[in-house]
Amino acid sequence: MLNVGLIGAGRIGRVHARSVAANAGATLRLVADPVLAAAESLAEAHGARAGSDVDAIFSDPEVDAVIICSPTPLHVDHIVAAAKAGKPALCEKPVAMDLAAVDELQGRLAGLEPLVMMGFQRRFDPSFRRVHDLVSAGEVGPVEQVTIVSRDPAAPPAEYIAVSGGIFKDMTIHDFDMARYLLGDIVAVSAVGQHLDPALADTGDFDGAVITLVSAQGAVATITNSRHCATGYDQRVEVFGPRGSLAVENLRATTVRRFGADASSAEDPYLDFFLTRYEAAYARELDEFIAAIAENRAPTPTIADGVAALRIAEAAAASANSGAIVRL
Amino acid sequence: MLNVGLIGAGRIGRVHARSVAANAGATLRLVADPVLAAAESLAEAHGARAGSDVDAIFSDPEVDAVIICSPTPLHVDHIVAAAKAGKPALCEKPVAMDLAAVDELQGRLAGLEPLVMMGFQRRFDPSFRRVHDLVSAGEVGPVEQVTIVSRDPAAPPAEYIAVSGGIFKDMTIHDFDMARYLLGDIVAVSAVGQHLDPALADTGDFDGAVITLVSAQGAVATITNSRHCATGYDQRVEVFGPRGSLAVENLRATTVRRFGADASSAEDPYLDFFLTRYEAAYARELDEFIAAIAENRAPTPTIADGVAALRIAEAAAASANSGAIVRL
Amino acid sequence: MLNVGLIGAGRIGRVHARSVAANAGATLRLVADPVLAAAESLAEAHGARAGSDVDAIFSDPEVDAVIICSPTPLHVDHIVAAAKAGKPALCEKPVAMDLAAVDELQGRLAGLEPLVMMGFQRRFDPSFRRVHDLVSAGEVGPVEQVTIVSRDPAAPPAEYIAVSGGIFKDMTIHDFDMARYLLGDIVAVSAVGQHLDPALADTGDFDGAVITLVSAQGAVATITNSRHCATGYDQRVEVFGPRGSLAVENLRATTVRRFGADASSAEDPYLDFFLTRYEAAYARELDEFIAAIAENRAPTPTIADGVAALRIAEAAAASANSGAIVRL
Amino acid sequence: MLNVGLIGAGRIGRVHARSVAANAGATLRLVADPVLAAAESLAEAHGARAGSDVDAIFSDPEVDAVIICSPTPLHVDHIVAAAKAGKPALCEKPVAMDLAAVDELQGRLAGLEPLVMMGFQRRFDPSFRRVHDLVSAGEVGPVEQVTIVSRDPAAPPAEYIAVSGGIFKDMTIHDFDMARYLLGDIVAVSAVGQHLDPALADTGDFDGAVITLVSAQGAVATITNSRHCATGYDQRVEVFGPRGSLAVENLRATTVRRFGADASSAEDPYLDFFLTRYEAAYARELDEFIAAIAENRAPTPTIADGVAALRIAEAAAASANSGAIVRL
Repeated sequence: MLNVGLIGAGRIGRVHARSVAANAGATLRLVADPVLAAAESLAEAHGARAGSDVDAIFSDPEVDAVIICSPTPLHVDHIVAAAKAGKPALCEKPVAMDLAAVDELQGRLAGLEPLVMMGFQRRFDPSFRRVHDLVSAGEVGPVEQVTIVSRDPAAPPAEYIAVSGGIFKDMTIHDFDMARYLLGDIVAVSAVGQHLDPALADTGDFDGAVITLVSAQGAVATITNSRHCATGYDQRVEVFGPRGSLAVENLRATTVRRFGADASSAEDPYLDFFLTRYEAAYARELDEFIAAIAENRAPTPTIADGVAALRIAEAAAASANSGAIVRL
Repeated sequence: MLNVGLIGAGRIGRVHARSVAANAGATLRLVADPVLAAAESLAEAHGARAGSDVDAIFSDPEVDAVIICSPTPLHVDHIVAAAKAGKPALCEKPVAMDLAAVDELQGRLAGLEPLVMMGFQRRFDPSFRRVHDLVSAGEVGPVEQVTIVSRDPAAPPAEYIAVSGGIFKDMTIHDFDMARYLLGDIVAVSAVGQHLDPALADTGDFDGAVITLVSAQGAVATITNSRHCATGYDQRVEVFGPRGSLAVENLRATTVRRFGADASSAEDPYLDFFLTRYEAAYARELDEFIAAIAENRAPTPTIADGVAALRIAEAAAASANSGAIVRL
Repeated sequence: MLNVGLIGAGRIGRVHARSVAANAGATLRLVADPVLAAAESLAEAHGARAGSDVDAIFSDPEVDAVIICSPTPLHVDHIVAAAKAGKPALCEKPVAMDLAAVDELQGRLAGLEPLVMMGFQRRFDPSFRRVHDLVSAGEVGPVEQVTIVSRDPAAPPAEYIAVSGGIFKDMTIHDFDMARYLLGDIVAVSAVGQHLDPALADTGDFDGAVITLVSAQGAVATITNSRHCATGYDQRVEVFGPRGSLAVENLRATTVRRFGADASSAEDPYLDFFLTRYEAAYARELDEFIAAIAENRAPTPTIADGVAALRIAEAAAASANSGAIVRL
Repeated sequence: MLNVGLIGAGRIGRVHARSVAANAGATLRLVADPVLAAAESLAEAHGARAGSDVDAIFSDPEVDAVIICSPTPLHVDHIVAAAKAGKPALCEKPVAMDLAAVDELQGRLAGLEPLVMMGFQRRFDPSFRRVHDLVSAGEVGPVEQVTIVSRDPAAPPAEYIAVSGGIFKDMTIHDFDMARYLLGDIVAVSAVGQHLDPALADTGDFDGAVITLVSAQGAVATITNSRHCATGYDQRVEVFGPRGSLAVENLRATTVRRFGADASSAEDPYLDFFLTRYEAAYARELDEFIAAIAENRAPTPTIADGVAALRIAEAAAASANSGAIVRL
């Protein structure tokens, strides 16, 4: 039984708390958040203790491992603190605000042997994983083209966007990791940003984007993003190779189809957002974290995976602003 | 080039006229209908001659073969006349009004060697044919269960129903032939009739029906019929065996799917009725008729197929009225 | 928190044990099975006590409610014992071996006010429930026709079949309840039984069946059953009315589609069997049981629902043997 | 009845000959090809005359209109000759080899009022047209993103590729026109070219490509191309806007689905290539050509549409070679 300490009681923190509660191999012991009321509310729901002193979590003897859901600017500090305390850490994406912070992180981790896993939960989604495994088994031959569509059902609040680091680090970074999961290293990036929703104009951030990635093997991936999608959370991947293709469809709440005078075979809209869409993925991500700790091995995805995705995100932002392809 | 004479300028006559016009191997020469205006209108559209004397068609030297689209009570006379004239005939279903008329037909055909083909066009639909061929090739193993759904988009006029011979001979007979096409001989029939649409109550005929057929090999088929279907012409078959299943989906005008806030993957309604749904089937049925004549061989389906379907239809009517299973 | 005692550590008992373990509102306290080793094995996995004395469960002060997964011949005794002990009971189907046993049950329950829920879990499946709710809301108008396909992936052991009460009470009874869930009372039944798999010939039981039901409102339902299905657990329903249709598709483990030279859009086989297919349904069934206890109200489906389904099952068996339609 | 002269008896010439033959409003009168045997073979199949002197077609009194299927370098000459002869022309894409040739064309057409239609047949495909019309009707709101996937089943011969003008002018040009059909004017283009099939390495041409287009309204389209696709001719479009999406699926020969132990709902591979996939589109394209002539109006798509698509193709080629986004 793994005793877990959770840093951050916000939206994603609640997702992980729920995932820990449902896992037979883990127990939530401590929730730490500078906003004590938030920590208490979440802790109470799962029978855990709460605290406002985040640093105390690293020295808490009851905490075997930490899940880092703090704001991105604190990720470096929290990863390093966990490493020094010898506590395994599962850290939400992105690993850091920028590549300068990554350099700092790598310097501070020198000489330590931290067990850190990055929270790219989509790698644990049964459908994406199945495609990855089929690709690895040669089902379609060497991958030549990948089409990723990734749209949120509705934009987060403007205040969230203001501190998000921008769409590429905040949202697309999951798609960059998916591209790497399926294609390996990426060597070139070009991006077009869009301002679609006038209500978001003041944020200064793109709310739509189309990105093209070239892999080291010469495969090309496109990613199409939007902060809104009337039909729900649109999460699809197609992988094309010389022997065929593999595609992941969206999930719906039921398999009901309606047939009427206006339409046939009409299905439900997609599941509304990442909590329901990736419920199984979060559970299996936690399984992998627990298993890696039990087996004393490095979990995947690694910090290096987090850094690689961040590097692509910065390149995409640069390309969207300059209009030029960026080589990595 | 086969010169065709057409008997009957009604709805199904027009279907065949169009099919002949589109066929590179046939030309429509003569349309005969007691209602001369109807014959003329149809003939003119296809550059053919028109006449009101149906019997004259059998002695017309310009006519190589006839397509019989006359009212069912005249089928026997017209098949016999074609046989005596030595002209191949393609006859619409049902072959006759009842089994007594079939006996008469067989008596009058004795000693003749007519080339007669029954108009069960669904056997020539590319999808149903593909299922038949896959079944014959052993794709699912010995067929165990068949599910046929067959619904018209809207009921024909009450006057049509009054002279139609009843839903089993008029509409279900196509499904009986489909069951025989996939399963071979049928040995037991039970049926439930429904009165669904109050507007058709005065016709005295069922406008919904569910029929269960048992084949000589022990397979069981269900047929579900309705004279109305809001989504269009609903024509589906599923074949189940120990190694798997085969299913035929409905046809739509386009492959467009719509995704919105209320539904996803919504497709068009089905094609509206038999003319569009079975356009390819009518064309290929005519191809088979032409090929059989050219090769001087018996075309399929035969008069015997027509009689077998009629026999099932009579049994279904008896079962629907008596509440008992009828053995054939 | 509801403390649950479980009677029977067999296949379905294990399903319920898992469902209780995953439910935040219930705890498994006691597993009772005459085969002590089975009880112990299951109890241990969920931190419960085990016992071989089933009757002791009814007087155990730690047990608030019981789930009855004993062999069908013991259902009556166990329902009555729970009623006398004042413990709510969730009883697996069928409610009893035959209608004579039902009469006995009703006599022995006279004067008691038991809280008993029948385990027709399909009513709690999100997709079937959605269809039921849409039908109730008038989505398709008054239901006219229902098509139920229900096939197991593979037959149970011959020993199981020998004591199962026959396919209609053991397997089809779920479909009879589904028909009642969608159509209300059934007034006529006809059935055809099939002997499909030679390996099951010695059991004397049908391993395939097609049943036709007529509802009090004149709707007709067909049920197609098989003890085997190469593609997995085939569980589908279509509901047809004057304004349209509703259909429930099968569930698969992923949404992956494969496209190759031989086929396109190929999906996974269906989920393998009822545990995975109805995992959500069992969870929600338990939610209803817990909620009914908390609110001190009668849960649905009731004993009367169990009796009605059993009555149809007996009629179907009679029809399959006699070849006649049976009126209820 | 429109009497048609056809220039070029190659692959696409045969497509048009067949389309004319099937059209009730047109007759094929003359086929001209420098390779007389090719012209004769095609002419004979449709009861037309044949000739090797292409220029003679423009003065032939029996020819009302011409369909230009000559090699691209001859398009300018043939369009001008038709214009001078006062004969309406339907010209295959691309309109010319390069923009210099377009300038020459526009100069030579000055003062003439030619009726010229460009052969972008996809605009007449029922599904793409339906999406276009739904978009125009506001179904999804202002279009924000378009995803076009367009893959040939197998590469043409290397000799064809050598004179094709490159993948962007030869193959992608249809997708550029589709993007313009759905989005209007394009203002920026970036492209990545791929060398996928080693067998085509000597051609020097890309056999895979991913192109990003930005429209004047700020919508973004991606086009993914490949010269090979194991599943057949892959032709899909998705259109996304604030109120929903529209998607066009591939066409298959039947609606049969297979269900077995390895897969469920497996459909046929896609139709093999453009002749079958776009059979209806070629027919309707010809209808538009005939109608425009009859009504003495300009048909769509116009020469300007052909030029616009060519301009995008040149920009895409420049971008693929330079790695920079090209503004139009």
